[in-house]
Amino acid sequence: MTATKRTCLAVILAAGESTRMKSSRSKVLHPVAGRPMIAHVVDALAGAGICDIALVLGRDADKVEAAAHNPAVTSSVHVQTERLGTAHAVLAAREAIAKGFDDVLVIFGDTPLITEAPLADARAGLAGGADVVVIGFETADPTGYGRLIVENGALLAIREEKDASEAERAITYCNGGLMAIDGRKALDLIGRIGNANAKGEYYLTDIVEVVRASGGRAVAVKAPEEELTGCNTRAELAVIERLWQQRRRQQMMLDGVSMIAPETVFLSYDTEIAPDVTIEPNVFFGPGVTVESGALIHSFSHIEGAHISADAEIGPYARLRPGANLGPHSKVGNFCEVKKAEIGAGAKVNHLTYIGDAIIGEKTNIGAGTITCNYDGINKHLTRIGAHAFIGSNTSLVAPVSIGDGAYIASGSVITADVPDDAVAFGRARQENKAGRAVLVRERNQAIKAERKKAAE
Amino acid sequence: MTATKRTCLAVILAAGESTRMKSSRSKVLHPVAGRPMIAHVVDALAGAGICDIALVLGRDADKVEAAAHNPAVTSSVHVQTERLGTAHAVLAAREAIAKGFDDVLVIFGDTPLITEAPLADARAGLAGGADVVVIGFETADPTGYGRLIVENGALLAIREEKDASEAERAITYCNGGLMAIDGRKALDLIGRIGNANAKGEYYLTDIVEVVRASGGRAVAVKAPEEELTGCNTRAELAVIERLWQQRRRQQMMLDGVSMIAPETVFLSYDTEIAPDVTIEPNVFFGPGVTVESGALIHSFSHIEGAHISADAEIGPYARLRPGANLGPHSKVGNFCEVKKAEIGAGAKVNHLTYIGDAIIGEKTNIGAGTITCNYDGINKHLTRIGAHAFIGSNTSLVAPVSIGDGAYIASGSVITADVPDDAVAFGRARQENKAGRAVLVRERNQAIKAERKKAAE
Amino acid sequence: MTATKRTCLAVILAAGESTRMKSSRSKVLHPVAGRPMIAHVVDALAGAGICDIALVLGRDADKVEAAAHNPAVTSSVHVQTERLGTAHAVLAAREAIAKGFDDVLVIFGDTPLITEAPLADARAGLAGGADVVVIGFETADPTGYGRLIVENGALLAIREEKDASEAERAITYCNGGLMAIDGRKALDLIGRIGNANAKGEYYLTDIVEVVRASGGRAVAVKAPEEELTGCNTRAELAVIERLWQQRRRQQMMLDGVSMIAPETVFLSYDTEIAPDVTIEPNVFFGPGVTVESGALIHSFSHIEGAHISADAEIGPYARLRPGANLGPHSKVGNFCEVKKAEIGAGAKVNHLTYIGDAIIGEKTNIGAGTITCNYDGINKHLTRIGAHAFIGSNTSLVAPVSIGDGAYIASGSVITADVPDDAVAFGRARQENKAGRAVLVRERNQAIKAERKKAAE
Repeated sequence: MTATKRTCLAVILAAGESTRMKSSRSKVLHPVAGRPMIAHVVDALAGAGICDIALVLGRDADKVEAAAHNPAVTSSVHVQTERLGTAHAVLAAREAIAKGFDDVLVIFGDTPLITEAPLADARAGLAGGADVVVIGFETADPTGYGRLIVENGALLAIREEKDASEAERAITYCNGGLMAIDGRKALDLIGRIGNANAKGEYYLTDIVEVVRASGGRAVAVKAPEEELTGCNTRAELAVIERLWQQRRRQQMMLDGVSMIAPETVFLSYDTEIAPDVTIEPNVFFGPGVTVESGALIHSFSHIEGAHISADAEIGPYARLRPGANLGPHSKVGNFCEVKKAEIGAGAKVNHLTYIGDAIIGEKTNIGAGTITCNYDGINKHLTRIGAHAFIGSNTSLVAPVSIGDGAYIASGSVITADVPDDAVAFGRARQENKAGRAVLVRERNQAIKAERKKAAE
Repeated sequence: MTATKRTCLAVILAAGESTRMKSSRSKVLHPVAGRPMIAHVVDALAGAGICDIALVLGRDADKVEAAAHNPAVTSSVHVQTERLGTAHAVLAAREAIAKGFDDVLVIFGDTPLITEAPLADARAGLAGGADVVVIGFETADPTGYGRLIVENGALLAIREEKDASEAERAITYCNGGLMAIDGRKALDLIGRIGNANAKGEYYLTDIVEVVRASGGRAVAVKAPEEELTGCNTRAELAVIERLWQQRRRQQMMLDGVSMIAPETVFLSYDTEIAPDVTIEPNVFFGPGVTVESGALIHSFSHIEGAHISADAEIGPYARLRPGANLGPHSKVGNFCEVKKAEIGAGAKVNHLTYIGDAIIGEKTNIGAGTITCNYDGINKHLTRIGAHAFIGSNTSLVAPVSIGDGAYIASGSVITADVPDDAVAFGRARQENKAGRAVLVRERNQAIKAERKKAAE
Repeated sequence: MTATKRTCLAVILAAGESTRMKSSRSKVLHPVAGRPMIAHVVDALAGAGICDIALVLGRDADKVEAAAHNPAVTSSVHVQTERLGTAHAVLAAREAIAKGFDDVLVIFGDTPLITEAPLADARAGLAGGADVVVIGFETADPTGYGRLIVENGALLAIREEKDASEAERAITYCNGGLMAIDGRKALDLIGRIGNANAKGEYYLTDIVEVVRASGGRAVAVKAPEEELTGCNTRAELAVIERLWQQRRRQQMMLDGVSMIAPETVFLSYDTEIAPDVTIEPNVFFGPGVTVESGALIHSFSHIEGAHISADAEIGPYARLRPGANLGPHSKVGNFCEVKKAEIGAGAKVNHLTYIGDAIIGEKTNIGAGTITCNYDGINKHLTRIGAHAFIGSNTSLVAPVSIGDGAYIASGSVITADVPDDAVAFGRARQENKAGRAVLVRERNQAIKAERKKAAE
């Protein structure tokens, strides 16, 4: 979606101390929908066809660079050591800007809800002859924001609230912080921004004045308020997460996914769900999940790194972990965990089961309480189970082990050796009843109780 | 609750293609509170004493007819093959209307939140002498709706937004779509509706003009906006579900049920909960659940087709499936599934247990990890456990099997034969310790690891 | 936070019948955030340095007194037998008021969201010379509330809606019900309140008129509307719970706790969570939980009476019950229950496990499906497991029992005797395969099915 053939450099400002996050790591590393905030920003840029990025970083520079990595993008890192305002921050990327781009887009690392549209609009403004294009938003309550003073299509000023007249305060069109600058003029314009203000900082918003003073033209373009939401505290991070989730859920429902209570379904940045899937309340999708049409996902399921084929039924209380690959019409039921395992078409894993490092054939039935003992304390081993097999309840399958097609494992067995096709395997003790003995057991247990009580006195 | 002795036919329009649902089945089959949308509409009609229904159907006509079935109602099915507007749709039921009713009520199959009151109000309007009564609603944002032009109590017109003057656009009283028509005049009035409009369709709303042109009288009655919410997308379906849930939860709380976080409790159309029941956050009720007074339902419980007696305690993470019948003061605890089973008064099933096809006596204690092995791959078998019995942890009860009153099963046993009253049963192997051998096991496992690593190189 | 050295008696009115709660117990016993409503009120008083309390009680007086107990407070109980209005209720505490305090604060037992600030403001009003200080609030919709008529800083009247002029009805400053009264004059002022009204009751709000008639001074102080929310139905109780939760979550996030979906995290009155803890959606905290920095709590966890050390990882679906004490870097995973147990540093309890009455050493691995058989039907017994041990899957540990450091338990074992350090223990049957036998089993099961079918005919 490249709106223009002009070249563009995006300068992402992500050097803030973000002390209000009260976090041991950089703010832009905090995840939204399971993905660092800054990666969302880079995604939006890449989606808008902007492939050159200058990262202005402070703390955790290495980690942030890694988090911002995107194969569609070339990025350079510029560490800002002093913090003297946003204009000063942009100039940390002076070397990148100096390479010469048609457009320079300045964007913040903590606005993960931004989409391609306003970025394209801002660049279109430059293409239309403006020297600076500020991205603004309409808001019901402008308190605290800089107001955009627009006249006849020109942006005259960004007026900070404290400097605004009463009439200006009534303006609801506000500065969103993001802006596009003519790439050939950017260093010159920014370089002329002064610091004659209370804090002695260089504010990028002053570029509007600078442009107009030099006879240039500034304009504003409008973006939805939501897309410009920034993040200074974890409470704001939660708001951003909520807005992201709402957006994605709404889109999924319009695409044909049924959610009984969408506000209780949590998606990841890459969750893919086909139409005619039904999701009950309270389902959590971690990264890496794909769900095919007709699947039914019951409440309280927790799913990550898994593929769910058509018409499979999951949960309630199913935990699918990375590498779970469920065949069509298969079922994984309550209190079942599946990890790194193929569940064959029509196979059933219905109750209180752990399937890890396993391959299960089609139409096989895994009884309640079955456990693949895949770990010996040091290595993980594989369990293979054929098709149409029946694994009795409470069975322990000690891997590596293979169960043949059509094999039948008696309930309560510990299986340590392979079971051939169509064989029955037992691995359990014979039952013995001791008549009347429960009376003695109760008496003994009562005696223990009495003794303990006496000892405690 | 018959507001009148006049006869009434309800024509339910449910023939829409509903392409925006992106669904493989008819829109009106999609459930709200666990019940097809159309069944809610039929319920409201039956509640209002309207027992003759003409269903105008398109796709999935058989399934919709089945979903609309209600023993209190007589219905006929009319398949609409062409789609030429709402008036045309009503005329698909010409045969039913021609039978002669005092009132004809036209209602949509996708308005499951409608209640009896506005239906009664509309019929009262006919009884009062109107030829047509339109059900309208007041809304904060009328954008997109037809406005009701009312003067001196008469409905002059339903003005579509595109045809409305500025003054008319300011009207917030809008057309809800539902209407009641004098049954003797209905076919004549509807038949006179033309299709001289952009789409060449026959719009039922034009009936107001037709009535007035013929010297008749149209009026409007007001219903809460919520009740008229229709459904065109799955996003709107989710909104309807939310409104339904809010209404029912609110009523339950006013009736004496405590919900810590009502917005996280999901009810079904037929859920019955007595006063002085407490429900923690995140509980899902499927169809067929009744809960008696004093019960406590902990978080993350998933309950369907179950009866919970007085003072029972459920969850967290209890899954009760159809046929679970819990006695007074019984407990079903975390990660326990109960299906088609009687749990005696005061009995406890507290941890990681599957009870299926079983009868458990009073005050019996079922240890953690117990599993009724009820399925042999082909049949389901019954487990009977007496009163005051003690089932040790990790026991497998291989059904059919009976455990007597006061019997005691040793932990880890596999029980395949009946256990008499007061007997102790063992079904487990004797323990053997091999001194120092864990060192060797670790060494062997390390060796396997090294070998694998080597093989991988 | 004592705003003054003046002495103060708080009179808590909690004698209401609260019939609209439809409850078998007094309204003020209903919990908010896991603690009776009235205890929140007493906490706020104690926090404001008010340590003398007169409880005016009706039903459940003993239980309410116990629930209101607070070591920082001295309280007396006064049972109101007749219910003749709020002024009459306050006079039930005549004896306490007569002891002589500088300030008398009248507060309701069903306003658990009150904080210290408005209480201090009201007392400051008395210190500033007022005889009565009414706590009011600004509201968007004043319908139904008494309006505060204030002129030049003086409170002229509390005007009930039915008596208000149109201009007065437009006032949005309303009576919150709470008030502070000059302690030396309180009995006299209240005593002069009459009952010449429709219901013949004595209304405390009439004190404003009484004060002004006697030449005294009444004023109003403002509190946030939320803090004055009262509770008459369980629906209102749910609203109060929601407001409480929102307040506490917001504070926690500002303090550095990450919540992906704060509206799905339920806290108790005493939940303590350190900064840099991450909480996934849908987590329930019962009373008595502390969480150290760096811990990660996955979805669907239910935690009460537990301590979670730094960098531990919990859930999804972890149930921690009272006495669970998790060491640093330990893990308790899905479908695991831990009760009264120490989990050593770096130890792992990952799947489908019940650990009760146990001590587990550091870096020990507990296999899937392990169960501590801690209960013999009468007594609970202890399981001790050393460090670096390996408990194979599906093991039953029959307590009392000790497993040594570095010991290794084979999967599927029932362990009834102690296992020395570095020993391997087996307690399981040997496996036997019966070739081709599964075919016979299936045939037999089919035969049973056929027979049952025949019998049913």
